[in-house]
Amino acid sequence: MTHLSQGRVLLVGAGPGAVDLMTLRAMRMLETADVVVHDRLVSAEILAYAPPGARMIAVGKGPKCKTVPQDRINQILYELACEGLCVARLKGGDPLIFGRGSEEADYLRARGVTVEYAPGITAAQGMAAATGVPLTHRGLSTGVRYVTGHRARNAPLDLDWKSLADPDTTLVVYMGAANIAEIALNLMREGLPGAMPVLAVSEVTTPREARMVSRLDRIGLDMAADPLPAPVLFVIGHVVSLYGSAALPLDLPEAMAGE
Amino acid sequence: MTHLSQGRVLLVGAGPGAVDLMTLRAMRMLETADVVVHDRLVSAEILAYAPPGARMIAVGKGPKCKTVPQDRINQILYELACEGLCVARLKGGDPLIFGRGSEEADYLRARGVTVEYAPGITAAQGMAAATGVPLTHRGLSTGVRYVTGHRARNAPLDLDWKSLADPDTTLVVYMGAANIAEIALNLMREGLPGAMPVLAVSEVTTPREARMVSRLDRIGLDMAADPLPAPVLFVIGHVVSLYGSAALPLDLPEAMAGE
Repeated sequence: MTHLSQGRVLLVGAGPGAVDLMTLRAMRMLETADVVVHDRLVSAEILAYAPPGARMIAVGKGPKCKTVPQDRINQILYELACEGLCVARLKGGDPLIFGRGSEEADYLRARGVTVEYAPGITAAQGMAAATGVPLTHRGLSTGVRYVTGHRARNAPLDLDWKSLADPDTTLVVYMGAANIAEIALNLMREGLPGAMPVLAVSEVTTPREARMVSRLDRIGLDMAADPLPAPVLFVIGHVVSLYGSAALPLDLPEAMAGE
Repeated sequence: MTHLSQGRVLLVGAGPGAVDLMTLRAMRMLETADVVVHDRLVSAEILAYAPPGARMIAVGKGPKCKTVPQDRINQILYELACEGLCVARLKGGDPLIFGRGSEEADYLRARGVTVEYAPGITAAQGMAAATGVPLTHRGLSTGVRYVTGHRARNAPLDLDWKSLADPDTTLVVYMGAANIAEIALNLMREGLPGAMPVLAVSEVTTPREARMVSRLDRIGLDMAADPLPAPVLFVIGHVVSLYGSAALPLDLPEAMAGE
């Protein structure tokens, strides 16, 4: 069952968007790959650092794109490694947080393929660096928590609302744009105040970054009235109250943040 | 009250330890600083990238070091910026997660000093990349949460144990070495099973990295019997069960991880 191959797969975090938020290791891995298998969310600016002539393969995980099933992605990575190639598997954010990177690694390692990792700055960390809103802050938040607000078709949101409704923890919701009204409602039902501030950020740290400041009892309506383009990250917690003073201006004509 | 100055302060994340896990932005900021104000935990390997002749100022936050009070750190940063210098404030991990970076930024911005940010890979992400143990994994963990296990002298641990005892969330405890037995006890009291696996990692991603695999009902005893050197990160959750298969070997003679 174990087939050794000379190829290897590098699970590389592309970070939140901006090229200079990649790690040195991630950049080196990208620059030396024979073939790059990338999520559709990874920006053209970053893909441009692949070596000239490297094969580029886009696989699913884009919003509203035909998604390549995970089994097929695993198989593609394995076949490329068996050709003796150095394969960079490039994912937005960090490959070991919501990236299914560990599923790909398990599949590959079970077949004798060497796997290496480069972590990536998460979108939440990118938000913090772009806006100055911290993920923890003495007196406002004692910790931070990342969850996904995505659900399988027709399945209920499978989240522990009682545990999530902790006013002392910054809650970061990934992939929650479609369900944010329901998420907010459930959090209020478990006791979070409607006035709890919420920051929504789209395409964080890219030239297309857009932001919306709202509160828990209005974020559903606000997103319905003026939806931010995907992918959207939601930050729920007292730290968002620092947005006004801490906020760095967006370098965009339609900047929402003043000084 | 507002004094404009030509200097600026760069809040820079040094990441978990390894130089190549710094972001490109963080490295560029470090390489162009006039003066580097760094936590004692930032390694010599990283500090070596400061420009020759840059002033290096070590401030607190090291284990068992005399800590420079936060007020004094704020003041030092402000005074240096007022001299017109480009100040890199270098912190382990990410400056906006448990780093008190946002307190420093608030202080400086209120006095007219420009603040810029470079995020950093957290120790938890470094652990994942070093060991192959993911922070989330389908079927094992739907999210991840960072808390500190540190407490002020003689104060009780101020954590919401009921919320933390969520078996579907990977729990990462920073600065918890002194209190890990009490933390584990409280989590078990709120329903986490004693057999829940725990991974402790010391000086992650450095040549001095050390690891210990334990379980919730034994981690207190194990750490007492054979304490890992600070700083220690604890990862509590089902994802740790992947350690055996996912683990990358430590490149050390006393490697604890096999293939």
